[in-house]
Amino acid sequence: MTRWPLPAYMQLALAQAREAADCGEVPIGAVVVKDGAVIAAARNGPRERHDPTSHAEIEAIRAAAAILGNERLEGCELWVTLEPCAMCAGAISHARIARLYYGASDPKGGAVEHGARVFEHDQCLHRPEVYAGIGETEAAEMLRSFFRARR
Amino acid sequence: MTRWPLPAYMQLALAQAREAADCGEVPIGAVVVKDGAVIAAARNGPRERHDPTSHAEIEAIRAAAAILGNERLEGCELWVTLEPCAMCAGAISHARIARLYYGASDPKGGAVEHGARVFEHDQCLHRPEVYAGIGETEAAEMLRSFFRARR
Repeated sequence: MTRWPLPAYMQLALAQAREAADCGEVPIGAVVVKDGAVIAAARNGPRERHDPTSHAEIEAIRAAAAILGNERLEGCELWVTLEPCAMCAGAISHARIARLYYGASDPKGGAVEHGARVFEHDQCLHRPEVYAGIGETEAAEMLRSFFRARR
Repeated sequence: MTRWPLPAYMQLALAQAREAADCGEVPIGAVVVKDGAVIAAARNGPRERHDPTSHAEIEAIRAAAAILGNERLEGCELWVTLEPCAMCAGAISHARIARLYYGASDPKGGAVEHGARVFEHDQCLHRPEVYAGIGETEAAEMLRSFFRARR
């Protein structure tokens, strides 16, 4: 049997998540891609950075916007290992991310297909296309083993 | 007639909003307060800073967390001139803000009493106490005149 390979961008996001775990942060990683080129890759780091907004998506979006010199990431994709929370879904909308690809869904904290469902309200002025479940096994297993080790 | 004076923290948030307008940014300001002391004051600035996450609340929370050396702003208050959006409501929750005071409500982009209603879902792990309508006339008039001038 040949397992279908993960897209390279999700592999990169997973590598960022692994780096977060190595630093004692919840393993979540994100990558911003434009026209096939990786603009920014980032990981979760709120504890170490003393910044409650330091989720992988926020870090990747801020880095990409700084690099592109534009608060709007038109035509960009965001690849992230976990379903975004309300804060990150809001940031994805403000940044005008065109396509969102995520790995594991997050019933406990997600706000795309759970809870606040940020993209589904009239107050959301920009909705990305959303593709879920890419690398979910790898992303979820990384989170499970991180929390298992900390119990 | 004596008009009831605005709390000093909301006056400070409004002054930050005014500064944003002077810089061509949508006039929204925010202040983080702990035990009666102002920890951080900030304004909206996504265009100038090339950062879609640069809302007043996010800037104030990030600054306060950096100053206090802690990602959790336990016991802190956030004063902001406009009802927070989904991104900012999420950040307020992650930061463990104890009390949220805001001025004008925002039917078009708010996510506290409108749309995503971020604090009302099980996925929201921390809910602040919420006080609305403090300085709403001043905050709303500043926004109206900003957009009127740009039409």
